[in-house]
Amino acid sequence: MIHLPELVTLLTVILLFAATFLTGHARSKYQIKAPATSGHPVFERVYRIQMNTLEQTVMFLPTLWLAARFGNPSWAGILGLVWLFARTWYMIVYVRDPAKRGPAFGLGMLAWGLLLLLAIYGVIRLFWLAPM
Amino acid sequence: MIHLPELVTLLTVILLFAATFLTGHARSKYQIKAPATSGHPVFERVYRIQMNTLEQTVMFLPTLWLAARFGNPSWAGILGLVWLFARTWYMIVYVRDPAKRGPAFGLGMLAWGLLLLLAIYGVIRLFWLAPM
Amino acid sequence: MIHLPELVTLLTVILLFAATFLTGHARSKYQIKAPATSGHPVFERVYRIQMNTLEQTVMFLPTLWLAARFGNPSWAGILGLVWLFARTWYMIVYVRDPAKRGPAFGLGMLAWGLLLLLAIYGVIRLFWLAPM
Repeated sequence: MIHLPELVTLLTVILLFAATFLTGHARSKYQIKAPATSGHPVFERVYRIQMNTLEQTVMFLPTLWLAARFGNPSWAGILGLVWLFARTWYMIVYVRDPAKRGPAFGLGMLAWGLLLLLAIYGVIRLFWLAPM
Repeated sequence: MIHLPELVTLLTVILLFAATFLTGHARSKYQIKAPATSGHPVFERVYRIQMNTLEQTVMFLPTLWLAARFGNPSWAGILGLVWLFARTWYMIVYVRDPAKRGPAFGLGMLAWGLLLLLAIYGVIRLFWLAPM
Repeated sequence: MIHLPELVTLLTVILLFAATFLTGHARSKYQIKAPATSGHPVFERVYRIQMNTLEQTVMFLPTLWLAARFGNPSWAGILGLVWLFARTWYMIVYVRDPAKRGPAFGLGMLAWGLLLLLAIYGVIRLFWLAPM
């Protein structure tokens, strides 16, 4: 379980690729010419999913790495898997109906919040064990 | 001081969360239905703050890590704290009046620029000390 | 060659800065007042380049680091240099004519895809060598 965070990092990058792919696919399907990011409701939806995935990933990965390195790698990995599940669920639900994205978004934030607590614990312990 | 970069990383993630939270709050307050990202000037302002924070964070964190690991962790940490202060100030000023965001943005870029110099020094030294 | 990934990370951050700088420059040149992100075709083009560079960087850096650490640092570094070349080419072509961005985008994705294979190999080997 000690290497779960590396696996989660890999799967997160693949999730980002999936979001990028969906946007590219919708761009060509609905003929939205670059640099436009609007013009068809389905394109706008997948573009917003991609941006939200990007925002959340930039919060998630550094938290995962701090939690894994200074907290506990196994727990960090398990919470990371929950986050990945929630974010995949979010993408699927949002494409169908943006109004129903709440629970998936909430589960993702909860997993991230617990990871953050583990990272805070890890960083505090780091200062405690190795005083300046 | 050697562990300041880890603390700065943690606080950066919390800053990103604050930006995400402000956008989510404005989205519900002004009833901007997803996937729209426009419709009320205050929402557009906090959304732009979130995106700018995201852009800057993706430039900042790798620079901080290179500067801390291959340059000097204490100096990297101190410059990181200056960056965090500037970016928090930026958020506060921008919400009130976007036209006044200049000095805070400038201080953030200055701190990042100095971190970049420390990272460049660190990477050059790395190639110097361990030739191919 | 073993330290190429650190150099590539540094250059990636500088590429992001170039994209940010172009957007800031176009914002002042065409007088697009924040928080607007539209109003002149050239501004919209460089803003979209910046966002695409950001999206791709968030996919690229973690893949590079996994590939370098658990796969092979020299190969990861070389693929990283190809990615950097493709993304710089993408920026130059896109500013001139967004319709011609295809080949540069494709080369960037190809380099990233090969890095991902190296990262997958590295993570699988990690689990293989150090069973739970």
